[in-house]
Amino acid sequence: MTAHFADDLTAAIIDKHAPVCVGIDPSYDRLPEAIKQECAGDKIAAMRKFCTEVIQTVAPIVPAIKPQIAYFEVHQAAGVELYFDMIALARQAGLMIIGDIKRSDIGSTAQAYAQGHVSGANCPDAVTVNGYLGSDGLEPFIAEGNAGGRGIFILVRTSNPSGAVIQDFADASGKKLYEHMAEQVAALGQDTVGSSGYSRVGAVVGATYPAEARELRVMMPEQLFLVPGYGAQGATADDCAASFKSDGTGAIVNASRSIIYAYDKNPSVDWRVAIAEAAKAFAADVASAVF
Amino acid sequence: MTAHFADDLTAAIIDKHAPVCVGIDPSYDRLPEAIKQECAGDKIAAMRKFCTEVIQTVAPIVPAIKPQIAYFEVHQAAGVELYFDMIALARQAGLMIIGDIKRSDIGSTAQAYAQGHVSGANCPDAVTVNGYLGSDGLEPFIAEGNAGGRGIFILVRTSNPSGAVIQDFADASGKKLYEHMAEQVAALGQDTVGSSGYSRVGAVVGATYPAEARELRVMMPEQLFLVPGYGAQGATADDCAASFKSDGTGAIVNASRSIIYAYDKNPSVDWRVAIAEAAKAFAADVASAVF
Repeated sequence: MTAHFADDLTAAIIDKHAPVCVGIDPSYDRLPEAIKQECAGDKIAAMRKFCTEVIQTVAPIVPAIKPQIAYFEVHQAAGVELYFDMIALARQAGLMIIGDIKRSDIGSTAQAYAQGHVSGANCPDAVTVNGYLGSDGLEPFIAEGNAGGRGIFILVRTSNPSGAVIQDFADASGKKLYEHMAEQVAALGQDTVGSSGYSRVGAVVGATYPAEARELRVMMPEQLFLVPGYGAQGATADDCAASFKSDGTGAIVNASRSIIYAYDKNPSVDWRVAIAEAAKAFAADVASAVF
Repeated sequence: MTAHFADDLTAAIIDKHAPVCVGIDPSYDRLPEAIKQECAGDKIAAMRKFCTEVIQTVAPIVPAIKPQIAYFEVHQAAGVELYFDMIALARQAGLMIIGDIKRSDIGSTAQAYAQGHVSGANCPDAVTVNGYLGSDGLEPFIAEGNAGGRGIFILVRTSNPSGAVIQDFADASGKKLYEHMAEQVAALGQDTVGSSGYSRVGAVVGATYPAEARELRVMMPEQLFLVPGYGAQGATADDCAASFKSDGTGAIVNASRSIIYAYDKNPSVDWRVAIAEAAKAFAADVASAVF
């Protein structure tokens, strides 16, 4: 359990000198051959073994993981069961967990999502959400997190190529949609600021747009940024540094495929060693750009 | 299986003279007392029995149901299993199914969602998606639906109060974000238009904004509209009619809570009878405004 998500994550980042999290995006086809053979075609068993080993491998290196629920939902109910089991496992391993679920709906339905994904004992410490429906679709996620100190990250500026077609839509003053969203996020978060100075309401800000990240860092001083885009999506540690304050706080950078499939590029060592080395290099790279 | 979602839904609406679908949003607390007692606290069993009865009750009356996955995800893996089981049951009962999942993510992750929610034999005929991440987060849902003729509905104008804070954000010409989104939706749908004249790419357009729906109807001539907001959210059949073309095609109106919990307001009859009567009245009300 977390007392206040933003406070605890900020402390955990400093403790491990690693402002990064590892994304858990398991695709059966990409798992190590050894695991596939051992599990003899049982995809869920293979994913369970892989995720378990990845979590245990990265737990001493990084403060948090970010399981991407889509890769679990490929396998429908069995995958969703695995998703929540892996959250419990990661918590036992001392990791914080950001559930990447990007849910969105009207208030009454958002309430149902929040009950399933935020407030349960086996739920992650924070989840990602999509703000296209405005505040009444976001507030239930905040409210359900109150008792457990849990957080949300609202999509502001995503890391993908076509995000700009929507998110750069600009008003007469030149203000873009992502800036308008940032204003909403800052307002939504002001009642849940912890002792760290950061709110339980954070923002997703892609590393692939560093100039915009610098501007958003000023616009949302109380938001922790979850920063995707490093590694497989092309952003560097210097690009990521734009999302941090000068004191080195304020963001956590995620890498997924470049870490958990690091054995593809490093086949000469045990696959777990390849993952550990990639996670250490990732943490050191971002830390050196930030601290 | 559907050959072409928009063609088949258009035909099914005409066949049943009912341009409506019933939303399946089961909350355990609101289930009939008789079911709660029979299932003695087993929430999943109670929801299974309730959903099964609702589906069988409405199957002769409406062409489609819209299960809202959030109400299933409250119960995590067991709820997700029930969601897919109810889709199979509804298909056996001759209904078309719109899975209200409002998923969104970058391309590679959207691909994973689409594999879990669109292309499987037990997946719905169409799903709802959120376009905040732009086309590369939407195209995988379209592509995964190609083999099975399945469809998507992209959120354009939602029915909730705070949606306007985001969706009415306007550019220098006065064009609003929801109109900008409508242009993207129309472009994304142009390659999957069926013999009905409608694309497998549709739009969610809330009934609570009829003037905007009329304008969107012109902007997206090839899109089927999924129209929430009737009933519990306050829109009338005349409000809904704004989303249809003059020939009575082009949209399907959803009502959820006002139908499936109709026994709350009609306690003198069996709860299934109350639901059937509400579904018939709903279908007749919208049909009379549209046909």
